[in-house]
Amino acid sequence: MAPRDQSCGDGGEVDPEGGIEAPLLSSGSSFFQDPAHEDGDGDEEARRRRRRFLLAGRSQSNTTSQVALVGVGVCPIESLDYELIENEVFKQDWRARGRGHILRYVALKWALCFLVGVLSAAAGFVANLGVENVAGAKFVVTSNLMLAGRYGTAFAVFLVSNFALTMLATVLTVYVAPAAAGSGIPEVKAYLNGVDAPDIFSLKTLVVKIVGCIAAVSSSLHVGKAGPLVHTGACIASILGQGGSSKYHLTCKWLRYFKNDRDRRDLVTCGAGAGIAAAFRAPVGGVLFALEAVSSWWRSALLWRAFFTTAMVAVVLRALIDFCKSDKCGLFGKGGLIMFDVTSDYITYHLVDLPPVITLGVLGGVLGSLHNFFLDKLTFRKGQKYKLLLAAVVTICTSCCLFGLPWIASCKPCPSDTEEACPSIGRSGATYGRLVGMLIGSQSTLDHGLFAVLGSAALLGGSMRMTVSVCVVILELTNNLLMLPLVMLVLLISKTVADAFNANIYDLLVKLKGFPYLEGHVEPYMRQLSVSDVVTGPLQAFNGIEKVGHIVHVLRTTGHNGFPVVDEPPFSDSPVLFGLVLRAHLLVLLRKKDFIPNCSASALDASKQFLPHDFAKPGSGKHDRIEEIEFSAEELEMFVDLHPFTNTSPYTVVETMSLAKAHVLFREVGLRHLLVLPKSSKRAPVVGILTRHDFMPEHILGLHPFLFKTRWKKVRFGKSAFTNLVF
Amino acid sequence: MAPRDQSCGDGGEVDPEGGIEAPLLSSGSSFFQDPAHEDGDGDEEARRRRRRFLLAGRSQSNTTSQVALVGVGVCPIESLDYELIENEVFKQDWRARGRGHILRYVALKWALCFLVGVLSAAAGFVANLGVENVAGAKFVVTSNLMLAGRYGTAFAVFLVSNFALTMLATVLTVYVAPAAAGSGIPEVKAYLNGVDAPDIFSLKTLVVKIVGCIAAVSSSLHVGKAGPLVHTGACIASILGQGGSSKYHLTCKWLRYFKNDRDRRDLVTCGAGAGIAAAFRAPVGGVLFALEAVSSWWRSALLWRAFFTTAMVAVVLRALIDFCKSDKCGLFGKGGLIMFDVTSDYITYHLVDLPPVITLGVLGGVLGSLHNFFLDKLTFRKGQKYKLLLAAVVTICTSCCLFGLPWIASCKPCPSDTEEACPSIGRSGATYGRLVGMLIGSQSTLDHGLFAVLGSAALLGGSMRMTVSVCVVILELTNNLLMLPLVMLVLLISKTVADAFNANIYDLLVKLKGFPYLEGHVEPYMRQLSVSDVVTGPLQAFNGIEKVGHIVHVLRTTGHNGFPVVDEPPFSDSPVLFGLVLRAHLLVLLRKKDFIPNCSASALDASKQFLPHDFAKPGSGKHDRIEEIEFSAEELEMFVDLHPFTNTSPYTVVETMSLAKAHVLFREVGLRHLLVLPKSSKRAPVVGILTRHDFMPEHILGLHPFLFKTRWKKVRFGKSAFTNLVF
Repeated sequence: MAPRDQSCGDGGEVDPEGGIEAPLLSSGSSFFQDPAHEDGDGDEEARRRRRRFLLAGRSQSNTTSQVALVGVGVCPIESLDYELIENEVFKQDWRARGRGHILRYVALKWALCFLVGVLSAAAGFVANLGVENVAGAKFVVTSNLMLAGRYGTAFAVFLVSNFALTMLATVLTVYVAPAAAGSGIPEVKAYLNGVDAPDIFSLKTLVVKIVGCIAAVSSSLHVGKAGPLVHTGACIASILGQGGSSKYHLTCKWLRYFKNDRDRRDLVTCGAGAGIAAAFRAPVGGVLFALEAVSSWWRSALLWRAFFTTAMVAVVLRALIDFCKSDKCGLFGKGGLIMFDVTSDYITYHLVDLPPVITLGVLGGVLGSLHNFFLDKLTFRKGQKYKLLLAAVVTICTSCCLFGLPWIASCKPCPSDTEEACPSIGRSGATYGRLVGMLIGSQSTLDHGLFAVLGSAALLGGSMRMTVSVCVVILELTNNLLMLPLVMLVLLISKTVADAFNANIYDLLVKLKGFPYLEGHVEPYMRQLSVSDVVTGPLQAFNGIEKVGHIVHVLRTTGHNGFPVVDEPPFSDSPVLFGLVLRAHLLVLLRKKDFIPNCSASALDASKQFLPHDFAKPGSGKHDRIEEIEFSAEELEMFVDLHPFTNTSPYTVVETMSLAKAHVLFREVGLRHLLVLPKSSKRAPVVGILTRHDFMPEHILGLHPFLFKTRWKKVRFGKSAFTNLVF
Repeated sequence: MAPRDQSCGDGGEVDPEGGIEAPLLSSGSSFFQDPAHEDGDGDEEARRRRRRFLLAGRSQSNTTSQVALVGVGVCPIESLDYELIENEVFKQDWRARGRGHILRYVALKWALCFLVGVLSAAAGFVANLGVENVAGAKFVVTSNLMLAGRYGTAFAVFLVSNFALTMLATVLTVYVAPAAAGSGIPEVKAYLNGVDAPDIFSLKTLVVKIVGCIAAVSSSLHVGKAGPLVHTGACIASILGQGGSSKYHLTCKWLRYFKNDRDRRDLVTCGAGAGIAAAFRAPVGGVLFALEAVSSWWRSALLWRAFFTTAMVAVVLRALIDFCKSDKCGLFGKGGLIMFDVTSDYITYHLVDLPPVITLGVLGGVLGSLHNFFLDKLTFRKGQKYKLLLAAVVTICTSCCLFGLPWIASCKPCPSDTEEACPSIGRSGATYGRLVGMLIGSQSTLDHGLFAVLGSAALLGGSMRMTVSVCVVILELTNNLLMLPLVMLVLLISKTVADAFNANIYDLLVKLKGFPYLEGHVEPYMRQLSVSDVVTGPLQAFNGIEKVGHIVHVLRTTGHNGFPVVDEPPFSDSPVLFGLVLRAHLLVLLRKKDFIPNCSASALDASKQFLPHDFAKPGSGKHDRIEEIEFSAEELEMFVDLHPFTNTSPYTVVETMSLAKAHVLFREVGLRHLLVLPKSSKRAPVVGILTRHDFMPEHILGLHPFLFKTRWKKVRFGKSAFTNLVF
């Protein structure tokens, strides 16, 4: 093979065993020399550090999990790409966009927000309508039987209907759409942090979610509609943001502006807010929930659009409820959206009421953290049959309890106690709040209804640790601002108390489900490491004009999603980093098979062969696979010019950059790949790539177990409490 | 001079004319060669690009303004440093910090938030108390005279007292504390974006602000308390965050944790929220105002702390008002905090009410943007006498109008019309809202009070363009959630309409005052440039072990605040970038005069001579000056080891990085300096430094006037409308 070919990136022999050893790094290309052997004149310290770098970093690969528990099933996960990809093809597209394009883009953005709002409101309305009709019918039949004295039959009807409904929900989620199980909020939170799983926002998930939600809530289980509605809102937003379906010819050229992860993230954030707004008719609370609980990135422009979305939800819901007032919706409105009964009272409170309120806050914090603890320890077991059994047992127990309660608690002033529960955001109802409230409230001059509100606020604060949004949701539910200071006090106390024990319920679930969630703050031990201490190999790089066979081999043998592109002499004075090319874009190139016979720069501008939307990001979970493309032997020997398709502005850090500051960059800018540059100019122009997985504590502490032995151990194990307080 | 000395960074001869020509770049050090001449074998394209780079970039210096209008005076401005400075001294300090330190830090953080809340509430209370007593006394005297039929005397008293009060406020702000003039919100917004001006948060400013606010509001001028209270809250937060005063021995060792710009930024954000909370007794609205209107960086942890602060404001205000109910506060509570009178009504509205509401929104948008336009064009004139004259004319006119109004508008049902105005956030009262509301409302079935609320919302939305926070403030003021959808609708319409004309009032003022405000979005033309197209020279760099005389010369002849530190052979294999050292840290080093006789690595660890708090960031506006330090001739010939004091993890970009993406990094991470690395390894290890000024449109378009000629011109001139819609 001619030396010229060699320099063009014929990256060594294809490994017959198909391992993921790096041909480029170990033997192939001329510039990727072993950094430990590259120079003899450095001092001992530098050499020692380089050796350690080689041993600790490059020789190991990152073993953190590439799958996560989505709903009840295990899914492969993928990182999202919020970075602006600046390659020649996209740049030409941007230059071609005039004022009209921008106007269209803006108009579409608002139109999509409008649609998300309207559809989320409709979904919330359907869910409410379904629940009230199904549960109402069940209640009417049971009551009539009880009034007729036929308690046995009534219990049987109650039990069987509950059992059937629960089983329907469980079977749907276990066998049809596993991603629809659970509240869905951890999945939405992970998505907005940059972790995608194929099924979380599919149409199937959406339908099963709504039907399952109706069945589960109607079955008298203590589950709320809020979580499912957040997931539903996010689903609607994500489906609208896919840019239509080219399969069913339901697309339009304009929608291609939204075929990127940034715009989809914004839409899904608005969708999550719309879900809460639909669940509680609380538009401001919905915006704040999206901001406080689920989003990882926020801009004040997003505040405005989320507000518009939730305003649409409120308007549409109001119109639909007005429509239903004329008895067109069956039993809807008979049970009604259950509100607290403190609206009409003028509430007064004094300093003497503070001790019981503070007690309530502390109790709420303790109970909320206990709730999180048990959920963390008990709920997650493997196996579909186990889940069915669990659901069956829970529904029978709940039915018995509910049916028996009026007898047991007949001494209480109001036998329909549990019916008054707040439509809880979490799983356990805020019923406990009312019970606790009643117990304590009996010693106070305060209103019982107010105490129920405060009790539920305390529990929500203790479990979910959201202060501002829960506060606003409660205000919007009760329409009473005079108790604002008390609600705030209770929320702050319960959150503080609960934070001393464990993290909030969503963070626990996100961790438990194995999502590689990028925290917003930096762990203390990250300040002790540099990026070269965690970057793992083997690094796979391509030349600017690369042999097709080598690209195919690398794509087949690794799972990497981004590859540095390096220009070597004679195309540059010395080996220089040209940029970063994405796997998805390489696959588009390979599928087109627009190859060049030799490795000289192509006369034709290859980018002319492609339209920008050839490279548009497909919808969630859809992507090309290298195995689906066939190549002839001649094609494998040809070359492809990667320059026009390479992102020429990847974000970079020098290898001596502290891990903490690289984490700040990675998280704040919302990256998928971060290139690591060498400190010395004599080395290869790029020494590694950092991804989200490289910032995971399990990976870092696996590479550097000595960090456990130092004082950081203490800080780390006190982490959940500390980091919640500190950051 | 020995070659060894040369390599140690004796950066050329000191320029006898004291110009700011770069000795390092042009003649001195061995590696800073002219990039245009460094290699002969590159292709023509590369050489042409480099020459352009040299011509367009490095040879010019950034001429954007280094001063801004603060209040009514001109001040030098300085960038804030939100980056984590990781040098050896600070690292040792972090390693020494255990669990106790973290606990103390957390406790202090919350204690400071508590204090900010309490003091802001007290300041708001004092302002209200002052206004109600002064204005009340004036009103009582005038009314009594009018009841006695002595209209002439009454008018004279009214006019003279208003004139005296206005002049008091004007003289105080013009001659005593110019930084206290105006609403203060633009200054707070600029500070939270990273621009500091020495006087904005001083104790003098705080006192003048409160007194001036009382005088101005009492003088019947149409000014609100909200802006001043936001500035007051920010002042209190900033003063508390200075870490005490070492001059008056009012400091404590613990407070040193807060001697950095990050923690101060968080505190000032909470303080701004506390100001709004104190002005309107609207805790949730205060948090949202801080989030939506003034802050440039936000984390959900900050949401919680800001909420705690505003909750404290609400609690303290309530306690103080309770205290005043027993007639201990003079006239306080007689006029009362003026609220809208819609609380008690149960408001119903139907589809037929939509057209007038929409009209109101559109009108509010048009009037709001007109208000911004006139404020932009008319208000800012130079000269102290002009300001005094303006104030005098305005107060006389206002007094005449107010006194005459009840006669002119006597046909209206309520002659005290203007007295009912909402305590406006902006300058013009929401009175117009009520007037417009009455005109339109007469054709509607809606409540007049409701229409007044909607009218003021429309104007605020049109002028300030804040939707969520104005909405929540209005809700908290009126304690009525049923009209939420209407308020939202009006706000969204008026904001959209007004955005089509110009930017919001605070952004206009920030620009007008000359603050180098970093926008949250990227201008389209930034995508067409790389960082090398805007980076300006001359670059000043130091060697790891540098001659004192050279450092002193560079510090005296340039105003740069950060300098790259480069290690050269024999200290490294090749010239490598070691990090970035700050001017402030260099001054601490030079003041200590712990120099070494020659340029070999010092045996003693120089960092041992310093405590971390020697390098703590001093309070706003306080900093060392090189002119204050005297050096002997021998000292100037000695050396200093910069390594332990150099930030070894500065953020970097490669010179080919697109300007748009560098802007994203700079803004999201909150940087002060961004180092530009060369693409080719044959060049000097650093080619420039980007600061906030390099991202200003006037600088970029000054360097690249051809951008005006392209299609981007169109987009740029439509910018105010577009960017507000797009982002």
